[in-house]
Amino acid sequence: MDFRFEILETDPTGARLGRLTTPHGAVDTPAFMPVGTAGTVKGLTQQALVELGVQILLGNTYHLYLRPGHERIRGLGGLHRFMSWPGAILTDSGGFQVFSLAEMRKITDEGVVFRSHLDGSEHLLSPEKSIQIQQALGGDIAMVFDECIEYPADHARAAGAVKRTTEWARRCRDYAFAPKKAEQPNAEVNPGQILFGIVQGGTHSDLRRESARQLVDLDFPGYAVGGLAVGEPHELSCEMAATVTEILPKDRPRYVMGVGLPEQLADYVRCGTDMMDCVLPTRNARNGCLFTSAGRVNIKNAIYAGDPRPLDERCSCMVCRTYSRAYLRHLFQANEILASILNSHHNVAFFLDIMSKIRQAIAFGELAEFSSEFQARIAASET
Amino acid sequence: MDFRFEILETDPTGARLGRLTTPHGAVDTPAFMPVGTAGTVKGLTQQALVELGVQILLGNTYHLYLRPGHERIRGLGGLHRFMSWPGAILTDSGGFQVFSLAEMRKITDEGVVFRSHLDGSEHLLSPEKSIQIQQALGGDIAMVFDECIEYPADHARAAGAVKRTTEWARRCRDYAFAPKKAEQPNAEVNPGQILFGIVQGGTHSDLRRESARQLVDLDFPGYAVGGLAVGEPHELSCEMAATVTEILPKDRPRYVMGVGLPEQLADYVRCGTDMMDCVLPTRNARNGCLFTSAGRVNIKNAIYAGDPRPLDERCSCMVCRTYSRAYLRHLFQANEILASILNSHHNVAFFLDIMSKIRQAIAFGELAEFSSEFQARIAASET
Repeated sequence: MDFRFEILETDPTGARLGRLTTPHGAVDTPAFMPVGTAGTVKGLTQQALVELGVQILLGNTYHLYLRPGHERIRGLGGLHRFMSWPGAILTDSGGFQVFSLAEMRKITDEGVVFRSHLDGSEHLLSPEKSIQIQQALGGDIAMVFDECIEYPADHARAAGAVKRTTEWARRCRDYAFAPKKAEQPNAEVNPGQILFGIVQGGTHSDLRRESARQLVDLDFPGYAVGGLAVGEPHELSCEMAATVTEILPKDRPRYVMGVGLPEQLADYVRCGTDMMDCVLPTRNARNGCLFTSAGRVNIKNAIYAGDPRPLDERCSCMVCRTYSRAYLRHLFQANEILASILNSHHNVAFFLDIMSKIRQAIAFGELAEFSSEFQARIAASET
Repeated sequence: MDFRFEILETDPTGARLGRLTTPHGAVDTPAFMPVGTAGTVKGLTQQALVELGVQILLGNTYHLYLRPGHERIRGLGGLHRFMSWPGAILTDSGGFQVFSLAEMRKITDEGVVFRSHLDGSEHLLSPEKSIQIQQALGGDIAMVFDECIEYPADHARAAGAVKRTTEWARRCRDYAFAPKKAEQPNAEVNPGQILFGIVQGGTHSDLRRESARQLVDLDFPGYAVGGLAVGEPHELSCEMAATVTEILPKDRPRYVMGVGLPEQLADYVRCGTDMMDCVLPTRNARNGCLFTSAGRVNIKNAIYAGDPRPLDERCSCMVCRTYSRAYLRHLFQANEILASILNSHHNVAFFLDIMSKIRQAIAFGELAEFSSEFQARIAASET
């Protein structure tokens, strides 16, 4: 068995310090996963990811399916080899993008018919198809195909999505672990690939609990909390995460999908979750919004034009060791590629550094203190 | 004296192996200088430039004057510190860009009145102003402000530009070496900065000789051949370069501005020149045109979609060591930032590698053989 999850320490808050062992190396948890949408974390070379200490990144099934195509990637040896990434990869199921990016045509129990946002072509994504694609990509962790709903969603709508998500999770599991037939196109790119279930239920505690219980019955080696950070208040988001982790088995990794802001990461960890991913560090970087220990910096602001200081004096990343705010502002104003490169590098470094400090705080049983100090510093700098 | 030029070997063809010592390190010659237009070589971090073995790069006076402004850069300690570049820098005079990019308003003996391509604002660039800007930037080598003409230009037009270029060169020299007055804004960013003259004369041998003789009389520590690679046949370009170098003093470095294609570099070296610069490697990279030892590769071509081989099997750069043609094609098709990063990295590596092989060939007295083998390989692969 290539996959292993150990819990090394537990903090009084409920936070867990752990280590996930995958076919592509170990991942210290709680872990932040940069998003490598189309087989690249936008603006960063794989060398930079290694330098940054990234141990696991997320690949998007929807994007890679549409371009360059999963069979293309399978033919080239899978996503790890295709993008020359030695570390671990988690692939999402495509569900979230189909519901948010594509033009949806029809949702049935079978799956979702949608039109590509690239060329308008029509496709069907079903539980079986999602697993088939993810097996071709060969990530270390695959995700079940779930029904993602909007916020707010009433109880009936959320209940429907829970029911369908559970049924789809069962079909994903059955398809993933069915004996491979000779004619089945799924040559095993990564025989060690495992599958996580996804808990839905909107902002309804009873449905979250029901969804979690149904997925636990299906016995996945890991569980995600989906459908959060879609517009609901942060406190409600944490409440849902905590509601779910109370039910999930303690010995399995827990992944909160699509979160969060720097000052929110510790909150999710305190809910007993182990993995997170978010496009914020790279997307905001490209827009000139930089995260620092003193809060947000909009680098195009004229006050930085002559500022010789590093972006974040408490940060030791390559960008903060090497370049000034004035230079970063100039690059952004001049629309230089290097602006995206350096801004993305710093923002990802900043998120990874928070996670590293969170892990250290858990080891010393001081996560609550870390959390309040961090939030106080952000609050002070933004007033 | 911070500046020194030694010739270590001479090849039977007339090529010279040398070493230029600058206030920011040594430069092995013949040298290729990547172009760092606006304080960044497009698509490459300064770390990547160091990794690539870049010893000197070119900064554009015109671009930096307009944005972020030379006084801004002076205030931040000069261009080296502004962009955190430890190696040598040569700044051009702004002449070429004023004549090619800006909307020109009026050329007089005083200088050129032009409108910025960024915002239409009106500016005067004169010999004195160009030196003033270049002193604020603090490059290791500054260039005189010259009159650049189009190709073809008749004898009378070219003769006029030679006359004005010589007069402007004298004014640049006088301004650069005049004792600084207290009210003069030119605090010395780089006291070791030297100034190269620029030979003009279009494609008229007699004018090229006349221009060279006039500039030699002004006694510059180095000389450039300007106004080439503007549309004339390559053979004519080499003929002009050779005509000029016959007259220039042997103990001074010679720089051919704005050249050239990979298969042309050795030709210029054989004309007895020591330095070159060109935007081709980075500009073409962004358009998906890659230079390889087997000729040009248009990476968006569908034949590369499933090609697992490195871009150039004879290249040992980071890109060719790490990524496949299929991945590079995917990145380009998906319009990913990483496409520009990797393509630029390879193309610059390729140009630097040619120069390194040229230096080695000179050391062994085998430049003619290197040259014909290289061109034969390109020709064979393109038929």
